[in-house]
Amino acid sequence: MDIYQKALKLHSKNQGKIEMKSKVRVRNKEELSLAYSPGVAEPCREIKKDKDKAYEYTARGNQVAVVSSGTAVLGLGDIGPEAALPVMEGKAVLFKEFANVDAFPLCIGSKDVDEIVQFVKLLEPTFAGINLEDISAPKCFEIEKRLKEETNMAIFHDDQHGTAVVVLAAVINALKLVDKNLEEIKIVVNGAGAAATAVSKLLLDAGAKNLIINDIIGILNEDNLDQYDLLRQKLIKRTNPKGLSGGLAEAIEDADLFIGLSVGDILKAEMVKRMAADPLIFAMANPSPEIKPELALEAGAAVIATGRSDYPNQINNVLAFPGIFRGALDLRAVEISEDMKIAAAEAIANLVGDKLDKKYIIPDPFDQRVVPAVAFAVAKSAVQNNLARIEMDEQQIKNIISKNLK
Amino acid sequence: MDIYQKALKLHSKNQGKIEMKSKVRVRNKEELSLAYSPGVAEPCREIKKDKDKAYEYTARGNQVAVVSSGTAVLGLGDIGPEAALPVMEGKAVLFKEFANVDAFPLCIGSKDVDEIVQFVKLLEPTFAGINLEDISAPKCFEIEKRLKEETNMAIFHDDQHGTAVVVLAAVINALKLVDKNLEEIKIVVNGAGAAATAVSKLLLDAGAKNLIINDIIGILNEDNLDQYDLLRQKLIKRTNPKGLSGGLAEAIEDADLFIGLSVGDILKAEMVKRMAADPLIFAMANPSPEIKPELALEAGAAVIATGRSDYPNQINNVLAFPGIFRGALDLRAVEISEDMKIAAAEAIANLVGDKLDKKYIIPDPFDQRVVPAVAFAVAKSAVQNNLARIEMDEQQIKNIISKNLK
Repeated sequence: MDIYQKALKLHSKNQGKIEMKSKVRVRNKEELSLAYSPGVAEPCREIKKDKDKAYEYTARGNQVAVVSSGTAVLGLGDIGPEAALPVMEGKAVLFKEFANVDAFPLCIGSKDVDEIVQFVKLLEPTFAGINLEDISAPKCFEIEKRLKEETNMAIFHDDQHGTAVVVLAAVINALKLVDKNLEEIKIVVNGAGAAATAVSKLLLDAGAKNLIINDIIGILNEDNLDQYDLLRQKLIKRTNPKGLSGGLAEAIEDADLFIGLSVGDILKAEMVKRMAADPLIFAMANPSPEIKPELALEAGAAVIATGRSDYPNQINNVLAFPGIFRGALDLRAVEISEDMKIAAAEAIANLVGDKLDKKYIIPDPFDQRVVPAVAFAVAKSAVQNNLARIEMDEQQIKNIISKNLK
Repeated sequence: MDIYQKALKLHSKNQGKIEMKSKVRVRNKEELSLAYSPGVAEPCREIKKDKDKAYEYTARGNQVAVVSSGTAVLGLGDIGPEAALPVMEGKAVLFKEFANVDAFPLCIGSKDVDEIVQFVKLLEPTFAGINLEDISAPKCFEIEKRLKEETNMAIFHDDQHGTAVVVLAAVINALKLVDKNLEEIKIVVNGAGAAATAVSKLLLDAGAKNLIINDIIGILNEDNLDQYDLLRQKLIKRTNPKGLSGGLAEAIEDADLFIGLSVGDILKAEMVKRMAADPLIFAMANPSPEIKPELALEAGAAVIATGRSDYPNQINNVLAFPGIFRGALDLRAVEISEDMKIAAAEAIANLVGDKLDKKYIIPDPFDQRVVPAVAFAVAKSAVQNNLARIEMDEQQIKNIISKNLK
C-alpha cells in the first residue's frame, strides 16, 4: 500500500478523524440535572451578568473554528467545501494533539467575501479564535482584514501567517550561519499568493529593507501593481527599493536569499551561481521544490530549506499555529498581531541554539519544546502590547500554558 | 451545596462540558503524513469525485450543529448567545452520551431570521443535521420552515418537536388507560408558543379532530387568528372545529385531555372537575406545573404528567431527540418528517408495554431501550417515505444503528 491508500484506509476506519467528547457524565437523574436542566441555568445566569464568565463555565475560551471555503486546498485548488473537510479535520487533529486546542472544522458553502465575513462574525459568542484555511487569494486578504477589524477574536490565516512565521524563524537562523543581517540582505520572493505575500510582509516588518517579489508577470514594481488587489498593492509599494524590472533571472542577481512559494524547478543552477556569496535557498513548492536540494547545493547554496519532510530544514506550519493559538487563547488575546508572529518566529529560532547547522536551522515538528516556547512568546507579546484581555506576569503565563497543554 | 452551586462547580471544573477528540494519533512523521499532508489529499480527491464519500472519509455523517440565538433559553428568556452556551454544550453532551452523535454547539450573534437561515445554510457541507434550540417564537417557525425547504439536512427544532413527540407518546399510552381514542377526544392545549404549536400540530397529524388552543388572548379562533404569524394561522385554522370562544374556563368544559405548556397554577381544581370522565392532565410548565399533581389527582385526574423529574411521567425531550437523530443520520435522511416523528412517538409508547400504569405511561429517560427503538422507528419511516439517501432492509437498519451507538 502506498501512502495514499494507507491514508484512505485511515480515514474510512472510523468515519473521519474527529469526534466530540463529553467532559461530564450523564448516567442518572442527578447528573442530568447538573449538566442540563435545571442546574445549567446557574452558569447561564452568571454569564448573563458577566460575559467573561463564559471563559470559566464553558469551553469557549479553548475553542477555535477552522473555517474554509475549500477554494485553495493543498495542491488541489478549488475542490469545494465537502472535499476540503478531510484537511480541516486534519487541522483540528493537529490543534488538539499538539496544543490541546479544541478546533472544529467548518467548511462552508460560499465563496463570497461578504457572506464568509458575516458567517464568521456570527461565530464570535462561541469561539475565542478563528483559523482561516485554504481560502483562495485575493479573497483571503480581505476576509482576514475585515474580521480583524470587525471582531475581537484571535484571527489567523494559517496558509499566510503560519508559513511566514516558520520562514522567518528559519531565515533568522540561516543568517547566523552565513553571518549576514536581515536589514542588509537582498531577498527575492518568488510567487505572490497568500503565503508569499505574508512571508514578504513579515520579513519587512521584521527589518528586511531590500525585498523583491517576482510573480508570473515578472518583478513587481510601480508599473504593474495595478494588476493586484489594494491590500497587495500596499505591500508591493514596500518592496523593490531599486525599482528593478524583468523576471526571476534579473531579480536573482546578487540576491542573498531566495524564497520560493511558487512552482517546481523554476530556479536554475546558473541562477544560484549568480547570487551573492553563501546564498540561502528556501524552495518550498510541493511536491517539487523550485530547485532540487542536491542541485542547489552543487551550485553553491550555503543552506537549503524545503516544504518536504524527506529533506533537512522542513518549513512546516505545525511549528507555529498550535503554539500561537495556545498563547493567544490563554491570554484571551483580541488579535494575533505582527509582533506576536515575530515573537513566535524568534522563539522557534532560539530553540535550535548551539546545535545550529546548515542541516538544522529549524526544530523538528515533533520537538516537544516548540509549542510551550511559542505559546509563551506569543502570550508575553500579547501582554506587552495590550492585546491580552487578562494581565499576567511571566510565571503566571508559564503556569497557565503548562496547565492547558495537559 | 444546592443544585445550582453544584452545577456551577461542575461547569468550572473543566472549563465547560465538551471537548474535541482526535480519532487518530499524530506522534511521528508517518502518522502526520497520513492524517495530514500529503496523504489527506487522497480522501479529498475521492470526495471531489463523489460527494457521498464524505460519509465514509469524514465525520460529517455523524455531525449535528446545535444552533441557537439564545433568545428563548429554558425559563430564562432572551439571555443572549454567550449565556446560552452552557445549555447548548449540555445538549451536545446528551447527544453524545445518549446516542453517540457528535453535536457541536453554535450560539450565534444574530436574532435576524434571514441571517440565521443564511448562516445555517452555509453549514451544510460540514453537517448532516441541525438541531435548532432555544430560538424564540415566531422566528423559530420561519427559520425551521425555510431551512427544511432550502437544505437537505435533517432539521429539527427540539423545543417544538422533541416535546411534541414525547407528549404524543405519553398521550397514546394515557388513552389506553382510560380506553379512549385520539380521534374522538376533546383536547385543550394551553399556550401557543413553540412547544404548544408543535404539540398541537403533531396531535392533529396523528389523528386528533377536536383540539382547542387557548393562549393569553383566549381561545384561538377565526376572530383572533390575525394576531399570529402566517404559519400559526395555518395551524389555528385546523383547530377548534366548533368555533368556541372565551378562555380556559370555557375551553376546558368536557375536555378529555389538558395539555399545559404555559405558566404555573393556571388550571384550577374546579376546572378539572368540569372535564369529561377520567380526565388526562399534562401540566408541563416548569418549575411550577399548571396544576400541582396532588391537586389534580384529588380533583379526579385519571393520569397526570409533568415536566419534572420528581413526579411520575416526566415529559423529557431526551426520550426523543437522541434516537431521532441517530435514526435520521444513519439513513442519511434529507429531513425529519411528521411521519418520522409519529413513528418515534409510537416506538416510545410501545416500550412501556404490559407495565402500563397511571404512574408509568412513558419510559424513564435512562431506559437503555429507548434510543435504539426510536432510532429504528425513525430510520424505517425514512426508508418507507423515500426520505433516506440510502436503501436498507430492517436487519441492515438494526445493524447500522447498533454499530453507531457503540
